[in-house]
Amino acid sequence: MDNAAGTRLLEEVLEEMMPYLTTGYGNPSSIHTAGTAPRKAVETARERVADLIGAQPKEIYFTSCGSESNNFALKGAAWGGMKKGRHIVVSSIDHQSVLYSARALVRLGWDVTHVGTDDKGFVDPDEVAAAVREDTVVVSVTHASNEIGTIEPIREISARAKEKGALFHTDAIQAAGVIQVDVDNLGVDMLSLAAISFYGPKGAAALYIREGAKVFSLIDGGIQERGRRAGTENVPAIAGLGKAAELAKRDMALRIAATTVLRDRLMNGLDQTIPKLQVNGDRKKRLPGNVHVSIEAVEGESMLYSLAGAGVMAASGSSCADKALKSSHVLKAIGCDPALANASILFSLGFENTEAEVDHVLNVFPPIIERFRSMSPLWKG
Amino acid sequence: MDNAAGTRLLEEVLEEMMPYLTTGYGNPSSIHTAGTAPRKAVETARERVADLIGAQPKEIYFTSCGSESNNFALKGAAWGGMKKGRHIVVSSIDHQSVLYSARALVRLGWDVTHVGTDDKGFVDPDEVAAAVREDTVVVSVTHASNEIGTIEPIREISARAKEKGALFHTDAIQAAGVIQVDVDNLGVDMLSLAAISFYGPKGAAALYIREGAKVFSLIDGGIQERGRRAGTENVPAIAGLGKAAELAKRDMALRIAATTVLRDRLMNGLDQTIPKLQVNGDRKKRLPGNVHVSIEAVEGESMLYSLAGAGVMAASGSSCADKALKSSHVLKAIGCDPALANASILFSLGFENTEAEVDHVLNVFPPIIERFRSMSPLWKG
Repeated sequence: MDNAAGTRLLEEVLEEMMPYLTTGYGNPSSIHTAGTAPRKAVETARERVADLIGAQPKEIYFTSCGSESNNFALKGAAWGGMKKGRHIVVSSIDHQSVLYSARALVRLGWDVTHVGTDDKGFVDPDEVAAAVREDTVVVSVTHASNEIGTIEPIREISARAKEKGALFHTDAIQAAGVIQVDVDNLGVDMLSLAAISFYGPKGAAALYIREGAKVFSLIDGGIQERGRRAGTENVPAIAGLGKAAELAKRDMALRIAATTVLRDRLMNGLDQTIPKLQVNGDRKKRLPGNVHVSIEAVEGESMLYSLAGAGVMAASGSSCADKALKSSHVLKAIGCDPALANASILFSLGFENTEAEVDHVLNVFPPIIERFRSMSPLWKG
Repeated sequence: MDNAAGTRLLEEVLEEMMPYLTTGYGNPSSIHTAGTAPRKAVETARERVADLIGAQPKEIYFTSCGSESNNFALKGAAWGGMKKGRHIVVSSIDHQSVLYSARALVRLGWDVTHVGTDDKGFVDPDEVAAAVREDTVVVSVTHASNEIGTIEPIREISARAKEKGALFHTDAIQAAGVIQVDVDNLGVDMLSLAAISFYGPKGAAALYIREGAKVFSLIDGGIQERGRRAGTENVPAIAGLGKAAELAKRDMALRIAATTVLRDRLMNGLDQTIPKLQVNGDRKKRLPGNVHVSIEAVEGESMLYSLAGAGVMAASGSSCADKALKSSHVLKAIGCDPALANASILFSLGFENTEAEVDHVLNVFPPIIERFRSMSPLWKG
C-alpha cells in the first residue's frame, strides 16, 4: 500500500522493454539499421504519452525521472524567460523538486513567491493571480499532492496564472496515468509525468512543453529530443513508459473505480474504528488510491514498523523526504500541528490491492494504535 | 563497428538487472522491506563503480546519462563556486554536453575561455594554465575524444589547471571502463562516466565528485544521492552499471589487447589500401577501438550507406551531433579542412569484433572509395 513510492512494473510493460535490453541495443541517433528499431520505439512511446494527456507527440520530451521534469520546467522556463523578468511563483504544497528548483533559482538571482493552501490543501486561483507580476515568467502548482492526495483546480488556477503572460507548469507526476489529464482542458504550458506512477519503469518520465513555449534545456548537449534534452535515449525505459501510458489510458476508468472503492473502504473504516483520527486533504477531490491520516499521540514511524510486522507496507509521507526531517512541508502548508504531522501515515493503494488487504489493515491497525496510545504520555483519549 | 554510439548490453549485466525489473520494484528510499533489496543493489553498484575508478563509494553520484553527468559537473561547479568567481575553462575538443553547458552558463552571466588543441587533438597543459584566472571555478577537459579517440594527458593538465584553486573535471565517458582510469592518479575533482561505453545499460551513468568539492545539484529535490541528485533511483539500470563496471575492471586488459590488435589492423590496412587517406588523432595515444579517418573527395554519409549495404555499421562522427550540421567541432578543433572533415568516417571497435570482420571491411571498403572517387569531380588522385 505504498504505490505513491512507485508502482509495480507490469509484465506487458516489461515485455515491451525486453527487445531493447537484448538485441535492440542500438543508438536511436545512428544512421545505420541498428538505430532503426530503437528510434521507432522512442517515437511510438512519444505518440502514446502524447495520447495519454491530449498533447501532440512533438510536445513530449523524455526525461529520466519526475524530478528532472520538474527541474527542467522551472529552470528551463526561468532561463528562457529572462527577457521578461526573473520572478517565479510556486505553491507551498508542491514537491521538493519544484520547491528546491525555485530555491536554486533564488541563488542565481531570481525572486520567488510561495502561494499557500487552505486546510484541505487547495490552492486558491485568486491568490495565485495576486502573486503573479509583470515580470513573472513561470507559475507552478502541483496537479495532485503526492502526500495528502488533494487534486487542485488546475484549470481555474492556470487561467488566472497566465493573465500576465507567465508560463504555467503543473507537476502531474501523481496524476497523469492515474486520473484523466488533458493539457488543453487544464490550460497548462508544461506538465510533468513519470512512468512509475502508472505501472511503468523507473528511469522514464516526460515533460510536456506546449509548442512555442520558450523553455531552455536543463541538460544541454546533443541533438536528442530535438535539442532540448541531451543524452542517449534510455530506449527500454522510454518504450516501457509508452506502453504503460497506453495501458493506463485503456484501463483508467476500471482502475479508478477499483481503487476508489478500496480507498473509501479503508478511509472510512479507519475513521470509524480509530478515535481522534484526522483524514488529511479533501475526502472527495483526492487521488483514487490516497489515504493520508494523522493519528494523535502515535509516532508515524512506529506505526510503519508495526504495520510492516503485520505484512503491511505503507509510508510516513513522501519517499523523497528526509526521514530525519520529521515535519512534512505539505502538512505544514495545510496548517497541520507539528505533533500531529509527525503522527501521520500514508496508504497509497493501487488497482491490484484487494478488499481482503484493506480489511486486513482494518483488523490489525486499530489494535496497534490502541497499544501505542496506552503507552503514550501524550494520549489523553 | 559503432561501439562509440553504445555497446551491447552483456547477458551477465542484464541478469543483474532483471530482479529489479520484476519482483524487486520497490523504492530504495522506502522504510519497509520492499525497499531493502533495491537499496542494497544501488549501494553495491556504487562500490563497484567506485572500485573501477579508484574512488570512495560516497564520491559516486548516479545520473541518467553521460550528458547529465557533464552538465552536473560544469553547472554544479559553477553554481557552487559563485563566491570565487564566474569564469570557466573548457577545451574545444570536449563533447557537446560540456560545450553547451558552458554556453548555457554564458547566458547566465558566466565567462568562458576555450582552450584549443594541436593537430592530433592534444590539449596543452601550459595553455590550460594560461587560461586559468583567479576567478576560474572549473576547468573541463575530455579524457578521450569520442570522435578521434585522442587520449589527453589529463594528469598533467589537471595539475596545471588546479594551480589557482579551480576544480578540475574530465569527461571520461569514452575512457572509463575502457582504459585504466584512476581519479587520484589523474588528479581530478570530478569525472563523468557512462555504462553504455562498457557494455552496460542505457539510463545509467555517474559523476564522481571528490569529497569536499563544492558542487551544487543540477536536479534539485529529494534526498536521493545524499541530496545531490534528486529523483527515484533507476535501480535496474544502476545495478547494471555496477555489474558492467565490475566486468570492465576484471576483463580490461583482455579487452584492450583484443581491441587494439583489431584497431591497428584496420587502421594500417585502410592506410595501405586507400590512397590519400588521413588518420585523425594520434596513432598510439588513442582509444583502443577507435579508427577515425578522412578520405579525400568522398562524402562521409555516402561511405556510411555503402558500408551499411555491405553489412558494416560505422558512423560519420558523434551520434550526438546534428547530421545536418556537417562539420564536426572536433575536426575543426584539430584544424581539419572542412571539406576533409565532411569526408570522415569513424569505426569504433569493441572486444567482440573479430579479425574476420576487420578483413571484411578491408575487402569491401577500398572498392567503395574507388568507385566514389571515379565519379567525383573533386578527386584529383
